[in-house]
Amino acid sequence: MTRTLISGGTLISATGSHTADVLIDGETIAAVLSPGTTIEADETIDATGTYVLPGGVDVHTHMQMPFGGTEASDTFETGTRAAAWGGTTTIVDFVVQRTGEDVLAALEDWHTKADGNCFVDYGFHMILGGVDESSLKAMDQLVAHEGITSFKLFMAYPGVFLSDDAQILRAMQRAGDNGAMIMMHAENGTAIDELVRQALARGDTDPKFHSLTRPVQLEAEATNRAILLAEVAGGTPLYVVHVSASQALARIGEARATGANVFAETCPQYLYLSLEDHLAAPGFEGAKYACSTPLRTKHEPHADDLWRGLRTDDLAVVSTDHCPFCFNDQKQLGLGDFSKIPNGMGGVEHRMDLVHQGVVDGKLSLQRWVETCSTTPARMFGMYPRKGVIAPGSDADVVLYDPAAPTRVSVETHHMNIDYSAFEGFELTGGVRTVIARGRTVLDRGTFTGVQGHGQYVKRELSQYLR
Amino acid sequence: MTRTLISGGTLISATGSHTADVLIDGETIAAVLSPGTTIEADETIDATGTYVLPGGVDVHTHMQMPFGGTEASDTFETGTRAAAWGGTTTIVDFVVQRTGEDVLAALEDWHTKADGNCFVDYGFHMILGGVDESSLKAMDQLVAHEGITSFKLFMAYPGVFLSDDAQILRAMQRAGDNGAMIMMHAENGTAIDELVRQALARGDTDPKFHSLTRPVQLEAEATNRAILLAEVAGGTPLYVVHVSASQALARIGEARATGANVFAETCPQYLYLSLEDHLAAPGFEGAKYACSTPLRTKHEPHADDLWRGLRTDDLAVVSTDHCPFCFNDQKQLGLGDFSKIPNGMGGVEHRMDLVHQGVVDGKLSLQRWVETCSTTPARMFGMYPRKGVIAPGSDADVVLYDPAAPTRVSVETHHMNIDYSAFEGFELTGGVRTVIARGRTVLDRGTFTGVQGHGQYVKRELSQYLR
Amino acid sequence: MTRTLISGGTLISATGSHTADVLIDGETIAAVLSPGTTIEADETIDATGTYVLPGGVDVHTHMQMPFGGTEASDTFETGTRAAAWGGTTTIVDFVVQRTGEDVLAALEDWHTKADGNCFVDYGFHMILGGVDESSLKAMDQLVAHEGITSFKLFMAYPGVFLSDDAQILRAMQRAGDNGAMIMMHAENGTAIDELVRQALARGDTDPKFHSLTRPVQLEAEATNRAILLAEVAGGTPLYVVHVSASQALARIGEARATGANVFAETCPQYLYLSLEDHLAAPGFEGAKYACSTPLRTKHEPHADDLWRGLRTDDLAVVSTDHCPFCFNDQKQLGLGDFSKIPNGMGGVEHRMDLVHQGVVDGKLSLQRWVETCSTTPARMFGMYPRKGVIAPGSDADVVLYDPAAPTRVSVETHHMNIDYSAFEGFELTGGVRTVIARGRTVLDRGTFTGVQGHGQYVKRELSQYLR
Amino acid sequence: MTRTLISGGTLISATGSHTADVLIDGETIAAVLSPGTTIEADETIDATGTYVLPGGVDVHTHMQMPFGGTEASDTFETGTRAAAWGGTTTIVDFVVQRTGEDVLAALEDWHTKADGNCFVDYGFHMILGGVDESSLKAMDQLVAHEGITSFKLFMAYPGVFLSDDAQILRAMQRAGDNGAMIMMHAENGTAIDELVRQALARGDTDPKFHSLTRPVQLEAEATNRAILLAEVAGGTPLYVVHVSASQALARIGEARATGANVFAETCPQYLYLSLEDHLAAPGFEGAKYACSTPLRTKHEPHADDLWRGLRTDDLAVVSTDHCPFCFNDQKQLGLGDFSKIPNGMGGVEHRMDLVHQGVVDGKLSLQRWVETCSTTPARMFGMYPRKGVIAPGSDADVVLYDPAAPTRVSVETHHMNIDYSAFEGFELTGGVRTVIARGRTVLDRGTFTGVQGHGQYVKRELSQYLR
Repeated sequence: MTRTLISGGTLISATGSHTADVLIDGETIAAVLSPGTTIEADETIDATGTYVLPGGVDVHTHMQMPFGGTEASDTFETGTRAAAWGGTTTIVDFVVQRTGEDVLAALEDWHTKADGNCFVDYGFHMILGGVDESSLKAMDQLVAHEGITSFKLFMAYPGVFLSDDAQILRAMQRAGDNGAMIMMHAENGTAIDELVRQALARGDTDPKFHSLTRPVQLEAEATNRAILLAEVAGGTPLYVVHVSASQALARIGEARATGANVFAETCPQYLYLSLEDHLAAPGFEGAKYACSTPLRTKHEPHADDLWRGLRTDDLAVVSTDHCPFCFNDQKQLGLGDFSKIPNGMGGVEHRMDLVHQGVVDGKLSLQRWVETCSTTPARMFGMYPRKGVIAPGSDADVVLYDPAAPTRVSVETHHMNIDYSAFEGFELTGGVRTVIARGRTVLDRGTFTGVQGHGQYVKRELSQYLR
Repeated sequence: MTRTLISGGTLISATGSHTADVLIDGETIAAVLSPGTTIEADETIDATGTYVLPGGVDVHTHMQMPFGGTEASDTFETGTRAAAWGGTTTIVDFVVQRTGEDVLAALEDWHTKADGNCFVDYGFHMILGGVDESSLKAMDQLVAHEGITSFKLFMAYPGVFLSDDAQILRAMQRAGDNGAMIMMHAENGTAIDELVRQALARGDTDPKFHSLTRPVQLEAEATNRAILLAEVAGGTPLYVVHVSASQALARIGEARATGANVFAETCPQYLYLSLEDHLAAPGFEGAKYACSTPLRTKHEPHADDLWRGLRTDDLAVVSTDHCPFCFNDQKQLGLGDFSKIPNGMGGVEHRMDLVHQGVVDGKLSLQRWVETCSTTPARMFGMYPRKGVIAPGSDADVVLYDPAAPTRVSVETHHMNIDYSAFEGFELTGGVRTVIARGRTVLDRGTFTGVQGHGQYVKRELSQYLR
Repeated sequence: MTRTLISGGTLISATGSHTADVLIDGETIAAVLSPGTTIEADETIDATGTYVLPGGVDVHTHMQMPFGGTEASDTFETGTRAAAWGGTTTIVDFVVQRTGEDVLAALEDWHTKADGNCFVDYGFHMILGGVDESSLKAMDQLVAHEGITSFKLFMAYPGVFLSDDAQILRAMQRAGDNGAMIMMHAENGTAIDELVRQALARGDTDPKFHSLTRPVQLEAEATNRAILLAEVAGGTPLYVVHVSASQALARIGEARATGANVFAETCPQYLYLSLEDHLAAPGFEGAKYACSTPLRTKHEPHADDLWRGLRTDDLAVVSTDHCPFCFNDQKQLGLGDFSKIPNGMGGVEHRMDLVHQGVVDGKLSLQRWVETCSTTPARMFGMYPRKGVIAPGSDADVVLYDPAAPTRVSVETHHMNIDYSAFEGFELTGGVRTVIARGRTVLDRGTFTGVQGHGQYVKRELSQYLR
Repeated sequence: MTRTLISGGTLISATGSHTADVLIDGETIAAVLSPGTTIEADETIDATGTYVLPGGVDVHTHMQMPFGGTEASDTFETGTRAAAWGGTTTIVDFVVQRTGEDVLAALEDWHTKADGNCFVDYGFHMILGGVDESSLKAMDQLVAHEGITSFKLFMAYPGVFLSDDAQILRAMQRAGDNGAMIMMHAENGTAIDELVRQALARGDTDPKFHSLTRPVQLEAEATNRAILLAEVAGGTPLYVVHVSASQALARIGEARATGANVFAETCPQYLYLSLEDHLAAPGFEGAKYACSTPLRTKHEPHADDLWRGLRTDDLAVVSTDHCPFCFNDQKQLGLGDFSKIPNGMGGVEHRMDLVHQGVVDGKLSLQRWVETCSTTPARMFGMYPRKGVIAPGSDADVVLYDPAAPTRVSVETHHMNIDYSAFEGFELTGGVRTVIARGRTVLDRGTFTGVQGHGQYVKRELSQYLR
């Protein structure tokens, strides 16, 4: 096996930074060494002037996901390639079980889509579109044998994904037994659908009504409900996805202050984009920014509060909810009816840069950048210490990050399979120099050398982040 | 018309006490006078040594209500007679529209039950068992023409009364337009029914499981949801009925601290009775105490918190949720299956005494006793100044209350049509001496002189308690 | 004695409104009667179209108070005349004991200043500038014999008024024993004086620095400290004066939510004026608006929060902190050194109008206007039912208020002895038509008929507002 | 230099655990290696079955501190030897400047006491007993040149250590400029001294009155005051020492939820001991447990809340406040007057074991044990990555901990210079097997091989824990 020495860099971990060399032996890290230690290696990478990080872990992506009659435009191939370009060396994607479908069959489907196609490692969460005896039994099996230890439920999308409170409770009880984490899309879809109906009846069809019919109270409400149902279930660990509203964050913070195993993520779009500047853009342009939970008004301090949440750990993770749909064909499905716009945007490639910009802007410490983008997601979803840390025995997922390099985000240059960029024109400070995925250098100074199929399925353990 | 002078008593109002004489002329109060003022009167009642109060107003009763195949055991006749015995001169009962039934037809039914049968005045709230175009239109009509300005929805009892969140939202929006108050039974019935199912499947059939399957979180959850839906609806006034749990009260307190028009009541059973001492009584005895929301554990400070809520006005009203079912035939329906126990207990006769006991025990001021039991309920539900206050022009609903008289509560002596007393054996300090209902003396020193049919229907205005 | 009938008006009380006639017999109210009741009277006042209120009660004034080498410009004569013009028929002023002075001697002085000079009734609080054995003993005596049941301490003004925490604790303990209320000027004067020193050293001498050196945290801090010291003292009732900052209000709200006997007032200047628009006015103009606590920035929602606090009862009272100093001679003492500006402004004449404007603007209900400006201050400070209510036996302090009359506030027209108006040019809706003070008509449609010396000293009872 | 390989153990870090070997080269760690890596070493320590941790860091000790006419009974020699026995390889002690003394001279004194005498490394905080121009200037110098970056102030002990709020504010402002951390003893000493005076006057002289005269409100009050003063100073980092009361913790939690740089520690005595069981022991026995903040009642959930605070990171650190006084001579000074009992107890030797017991009891994760006892204290006080982590380049401070070894705490067996143990008879699961301090093995399986003078002074950087 090849032995590679990364020398001269500054290691950034969740607890601090220090200078050290890193020896990779094959697919794993063999040693972390005092700078300049003489050690036998086949090749040496000079990391002088760079941060040396554990590879990014994006625990919320939807490659080629079916939605509203179309499919997310990134395949596992294109999506994991883009991830690698952006310094993310592990994704956790979602298998989708729709109501009435079989859980294990769905898993089979997703393995078919992904296996052999990925440039970086990947795991799966399972979306339960229907909680019944059969899917509950499948939960146990997935936890015990398939490396799937987290299950996503929806309080939104009645008739498609929504689980009612009895179903949520049952799934939480089962997770309490088998140790799994429940992930929650926390929006009150029943009330939202009524508001959508009213808006359309009034002729309010523009993209901005996508946000106006999903008021913050309905995110806060569902978040609170999920927290209390988890408490009724005996304290099942709960992970709230894509938090966008201050009021939802507040409920999470209150629950966490009691010591409950309640966790949450946000996404770059909620940190940088807004209703006014993006979703309410003139004409149909705003459709590019339709995602759920929706972008919020900039006249309230949602984004500031989310950054604060990242500092305080009320938000433990930044993921992308990467779910791209092209503007020119897919988003157009919602022309004249915002409720038909495929929900989602692409972001898997720029997460590391966008959060690093928070470090540059003084909103987050360097440690928290690595912690929220790599270490904690790995711990949260049972992949530590294989992922999320540079330590002997860990997978050799390493990013050399140049803190001074300029990065310009644009559809012209990005590698995701989507015909626009939600962050078009963003000028960021910092950029990925080199990416090593499970021992293989996949990117170095702009040259991509990744190999399709190198990415392997990661069987995950139970969460290592419980309190 | 007869002129009656009540002289020598101490008037207790929501803001304080003072000595004054009260002149009644026919059915209304003609004057409040300096003590000893010479005034022409047909008869004089010596009130020396007594508190002179506005008659009690109980805004939550269910006379002869159909429930689970039986009917509450007090008719409007027996129930309003018992109310009068206890110093309550106005009740507001609930018309019941079940899903699929017609709202106006239901009102007609209830008028048929009540009209001509009551000893004291009565009004109606409307229970909406189904929110649709027809019932929303009926809401407007009831507010405009029928003196019904408050509508009760249920978050519990799926399939019977439960409104889903879209329906709740629509009803709240309509109430926002027509000025009505939304009353809410705030328990998450969907989750509760699942817990009930699980308990019965485990063989946990005793009455105590009625409480254990309705955990406090599910009251708090629904309370919070109702508050946020009212906020989404634009700030529709909300009145949460029968609050029993500290956690629900906390949510109400938080909402009230923001200045929202959120109000709540509790009932004597939650102030005095507990899971351990009553609902979990040996054998089937506990069935006497099955009501929803349920009695809570005495090992947590629910009762203390409720008393505190009454002091702070987070709880504005004490009502009874009077809904009696006899133990020997009706409650037996739930033998071997707690979920079949008819829910409710009788209390309309003892509310004034039980809350006065709080004054004796130093838990409430004299003013708050009158305010929570008479003045605020009248204001809350649009009957002020006709009810709830002793002032010229008000209905002559007056109670002379002897603060030192001993009252012993017992099925042996009570006047409600129920074969047990939930407060059996309670020894209270204070008792009703004389009750005047709309100008007619109906009780004096133990002699009942009320007349069936004297009680009239009260057409109510919009709430006079909004902030 | 003269019998006067006020007929045809709408009585406004703390709990609602109703039409009734009011019979005054000499100095007290003899009866409240159904409209149009035939009753023998010497004169009749037609109140048609007016609100009939209990006279205003301003519990925070400083007539001819010594401060910083000068004296507040209103005497008891001019100040109580202005109060009467504005519908305030009772004031409670502050006797000042400075450190080292004798409490009883100070009271004697204040009686000398006030007795025989007032147009309306007046009571006294006692400022304790020094808590020691002698003043503690005096407290008992004042409560028992002198009708002084409230004592004001300062956490500000080190070396002049400040009591340290040991002294505060001792006074609170004593009040716990004798039943008195502790009033608190809650600002951390030790820290403030340091900030003042620093500002002056930097050359920041303009009036606006009066506010900038008294940051909101130091009001919140002291408020919290007072609340906790009262708790240590066993729950002594606490009344926080002139609350100006959201953060202080929040602490009060939290304490009140626990049921503690914690109460607070705000003043019209905090509801209407701001740092930017007034205290930071060009040149030395801002000196007019120097008061402590100071005016706050309009860029934070302090005023909105205070209005909300009045709605929720976290603020129970609106008083004026009337403490006028003329601009042309007195305020000039602070030219070139904001810390030497005599603190205070005049407001006793316009409180009723300024708060009524809140009713007009939809910020407060009619009931809360009367409650916060008359009923509660009377109850809070032991004057109920003599003051604060229109009831038989109460002092005949009655205001006829025309809700539609225009009132323009101006130094040109006001009656306070001060050469500017803090509310200059305010155009308000509503105005006092007639004022009756203890049975005597002192103002009617712009004609003042008050008599110096008619105002009598009110011996106060213990608070009637405790929970 | 000697190269030592620690092989076969499980490394525990703040983020997780993994198996790895550790190579020590001289005084520092040279490499962390995959288990079984062949590497040249002079000796190998078999760590099979043990946890391998970074050495404990105790940031709150008072070796030979003068107090009340005596001196803490552990010298730097005996104290650091006991620390080493307990797996603590770094202490941060307090230099004491009393009011009127010179800061730099005090530092000189402390260096004289410590230098050459310590078995493990040590740093210094500076206690400022008086904040004036001279000490503020000294602050800058200590930060810039002496490796002292944290300054402790007292809100307790008037006349001895207490800084008034102006002094606190000035010190915080200066720290805001020079980057230092302010540590705060947060108890309202002014009020406490009054309560002490009253207790003694009543004849309440037993040790338990030490706690009863220091009520929780006065800890919460001072904590809140310190937080707000830090906010006024512009957000100076604040570290609250020895938190003992739920109410103080709550204030810290609220501040932290806003993202403020507010941090806190607790100590094992507050996690395990109580007023009733220890301080109120019969006779004078309780004097052993007199410390400030005091032990709290077990009838309130203080200890549970503190454990929860450790889980949520509202409490970031466990230190000992090690300040031993012998019972037989020193504690006796307080016989007949609890206020004269020298405050403090010994604990430096048992912190690692006592907190590990929390892991055994399911109260804390393994990661949080290492984080709160080693990693965070090192980061908090500017010693990372030299201390607090096992990483190449770090000081070779390593503990091999046997999670199954039984440890019995007793004066019979402990190594601290004190004639009793506050935790006498505690049977704990887990025990230190081997301790390496800066490369030197000082303890191995019960054999102590430490060398006096091996411990060196640690010049500290600014905090690396800011948000």
